[in-house]
Amino acid sequence: MLKFDEAKFLKKGTDALAIRSEVEKIVDGICAKGYKNIFFVGIGGTISYDWQIESIMKSMSTLNYYVENAAEFTTLGNKHFSKDSLVIVDSASGDTKEVVAAVKFAQEKGAKVLGLIEKAGTPLAELVDYLVLSESNLKMYMVAYRLMYNNKEFPQYDKFFAELENLPKALVEVQKASDDKAAAYAAKYKDEPLQYLVGTGNLYGFAYCTAMCLMEEMLWMTTKSIHGAEFFHGTLEVIDRDSVVMLFKGEDATRPLMDRVENFTNTICKNVIVFDTKDYALKGISEEFRGLVSPMVMSAVCSRICAHLEEELKHPMAIRRYYRRLDY
Amino acid sequence: MLKFDEAKFLKKGTDALAIRSEVEKIVDGICAKGYKNIFFVGIGGTISYDWQIESIMKSMSTLNYYVENAAEFTTLGNKHFSKDSLVIVDSASGDTKEVVAAVKFAQEKGAKVLGLIEKAGTPLAELVDYLVLSESNLKMYMVAYRLMYNNKEFPQYDKFFAELENLPKALVEVQKASDDKAAAYAAKYKDEPLQYLVGTGNLYGFAYCTAMCLMEEMLWMTTKSIHGAEFFHGTLEVIDRDSVVMLFKGEDATRPLMDRVENFTNTICKNVIVFDTKDYALKGISEEFRGLVSPMVMSAVCSRICAHLEEELKHPMAIRRYYRRLDY
Repeated sequence: MLKFDEAKFLKKGTDALAIRSEVEKIVDGICAKGYKNIFFVGIGGTISYDWQIESIMKSMSTLNYYVENAAEFTTLGNKHFSKDSLVIVDSASGDTKEVVAAVKFAQEKGAKVLGLIEKAGTPLAELVDYLVLSESNLKMYMVAYRLMYNNKEFPQYDKFFAELENLPKALVEVQKASDDKAAAYAAKYKDEPLQYLVGTGNLYGFAYCTAMCLMEEMLWMTTKSIHGAEFFHGTLEVIDRDSVVMLFKGEDATRPLMDRVENFTNTICKNVIVFDTKDYALKGISEEFRGLVSPMVMSAVCSRICAHLEEELKHPMAIRRYYRRLDY
Repeated sequence: MLKFDEAKFLKKGTDALAIRSEVEKIVDGICAKGYKNIFFVGIGGTISYDWQIESIMKSMSTLNYYVENAAEFTTLGNKHFSKDSLVIVDSASGDTKEVVAAVKFAQEKGAKVLGLIEKAGTPLAELVDYLVLSESNLKMYMVAYRLMYNNKEFPQYDKFFAELENLPKALVEVQKASDDKAAAYAAKYKDEPLQYLVGTGNLYGFAYCTAMCLMEEMLWMTTKSIHGAEFFHGTLEVIDRDSVVMLFKGEDATRPLMDRVENFTNTICKNVIVFDTKDYALKGISEEFRGLVSPMVMSAVCSRICAHLEEELKHPMAIRRYYRRLDY
């Protein structure tokens, strides 16, 4: 399979799961000290992960949590934020400038910051009060589920994480099963002038991130992401037979909203591409948890889409025209 | 001036301000009974107004408030919602189907709903527990400011609303002063394949609404709205010399974030169009309140943009291809 290292992928998953007891220790310590509310602070890709978590917490938790764009957080502020807030930031590079500024802003007000960072020794890894180091996005879920568990929510916590041990292998199978479809999409649509990406619930942030961080930033493709319920309040009017519309269907409670988009777009458009987590077996994951892992499943599918787009477009995903090359 | 009825515009403003004591009575009654938290529930244009209010409340209020997409609210739910929540909905048509469903959902759980509706006798006007009838978006601001005032916040309440009496006339002047620029934009860019609209703070929702409700839905123009801080985390890479980028600059605390976008885009793009509330005098409105009225000021500017686009495109804004014509 193109650009696919199964052993490396499995190791990344296993490594991510292996830090769970460490994450639990950190989160339990934070909960023991107490906090008034939680601020998930991110920008770009990381705020889109925050939105995924927020969507999951909405239907599960009475914790007080807020999602803030890092740059808005430091300029506009939020009256609910105080020294008793727990701030959670996530960063791959470890030096995203708006996030660094937000952490300093939060700490100056006396709040503690938990950092979920990919690289040791980076400014953010040095700056935060509590540090979780891991290359996987799973760390954010681990933290959120533990916070809920400690709030007497998500009683299936142990069962869920026991089953997650099966996830890396299941996601390998997802990648294998989705590869042909991803390849066909990339071959046919790579040069289209505009791609619409639609998601709801815990896949809205996913659609947003795929459009902006992967397609725009890394592949220089023109995109628009739109929430699947919002789609009917404007965007539908500019969709025609030749539009390219990608639907990311997951298995949380908002799935019926994506069914509507699928039914509707198929009546007016001939380029509707549906990626659906339901198409994949996910061996070892119970029905009750499938909705919770939809973002990870779709992320596995998307890794195949990107691999093929990168090849078809002959555009290495590592290059940037402007970001970190021109100041802003 | 093209499609401009000054007397009608002034009357709409005066009528909107005239209902304030009625709004205060309703809100004071709600506050006297008490509520646990506030759910602003909307979809499309109305959720974008909710985001404007949310942005304003962030820096002013410790009230517990949530903004929910109406369709997500009824599918996913929110654990913070209960019979003690106050639900606030806004609707121009009075029969937006997702909002009707959300109101029924909320009432079935025992919560009370305050409806800000444009037309009497519509399903939503009949359904809600408390009703404010007005054709102006000002009613939403009146409600939000009164809720904050009753929470011992916004001590400038009386002064602010006294000054708002000057707003209708000031907005007439804004429309006159922005008309040439709006006309030039429409003439030059009406046929571009894609328009980028950028805003932050209380103008992010505005940029989103202008892109989706006005340009996509009513003018069938292809658009993408993007938050001015998010812009640097993906979208910047697809902007080039010939892109069309509209910046909506207001005067709240997030203005420096728009300055960054303006500086950056002007180095890589020759079609940066800046609409800035600071360009307008706003006679009778104090400096301290200019940021709060930025959405109304930009809305006045936008009414000129739309008037000229409608004429240049020869596309009547009242027609729809699909919305309310095909089921979804």
